[in-house]
Amino acid sequence: MAMSAVIDLAQVFSTFDEAWQPRTIAAVNDYDVRVVRTVGEFTPHRHPETDELFLVVSGELTIRVEASDGDSKDIIVAAGQLFVVPRGVKHQPFSEVGAEVLLLEPRQTVNTGDSPSVTTDAIRLV
Amino acid sequence: MAMSAVIDLAQVFSTFDEAWQPRTIAAVNDYDVRVVRTVGEFTPHRHPETDELFLVVSGELTIRVEASDGDSKDIIVAAGQLFVVPRGVKHQPFSEVGAEVLLLEPRQTVNTGDSPSVTTDAIRLV
Repeated sequence: MAMSAVIDLAQVFSTFDEAWQPRTIAAVNDYDVRVVRTVGEFTPHRHPETDELFLVVSGELTIRVEASDGDSKDIIVAAGQLFVVPRGVKHQPFSEVGAEVLLLEPRQTVNTGDSPSVTTDAIRLV
Repeated sequence: MAMSAVIDLAQVFSTFDEAWQPRTIAAVNDYDVRVVRTVGEFTPHRHPETDELFLVVSGELTIRVEASDGDSKDIIVAAGQLFVVPRGVKHQPFSEVGAEVLLLEPRQTVNTGDSPSVTTDAIRLV
């Protein structure tokens, strides 16, 4: 198998400005490592079939999650922190100050989950 | 499903000093997110069944990989960089200056792969 390259996260983020446009930068078996720049708010959605990991590389991300009692709760994820949204949990990422985020999820995962919209997007670099 | 907590990587690394002792801090479906402190050199080994992701949080890690022609190559992974060792590729992580590393791999992955030793270890925090 061809050896993969070392990926520098700061270098990758320096190559684009677009928000909410995930880029797959590496693969681990059938999982994608993606990076995304978050600014403002994203579509509320669920991934009925998978957990989703958010690791904030810089800035700050808020994830508004719907609790089991129907209330919503804002999870603040700062640089150097990670959070896993469990499968099936409705969540809305937003970011007032902007953030650079690393995502981990199965390859077939669509960024807008069960709520496709104009923001449904993906770029594959590997 | 119970909501997971925000995990702060610097906080987690502040709780232990042991080297080469992976700690599972989060799960994404049947994949583990682990952290490990690397100092000195580890056992050369392969994971015949899985790729393995190394994301260096601080410090610097070198991964000596065996190329397809049998030669070895040193891959230097600095803070903010990631590297995926493909399944089946013999690799030896080492770290002269020390590093804090995040790993991603399937839950059943053993740190020493096909080369069990006294360094075979795992701690599960979730």
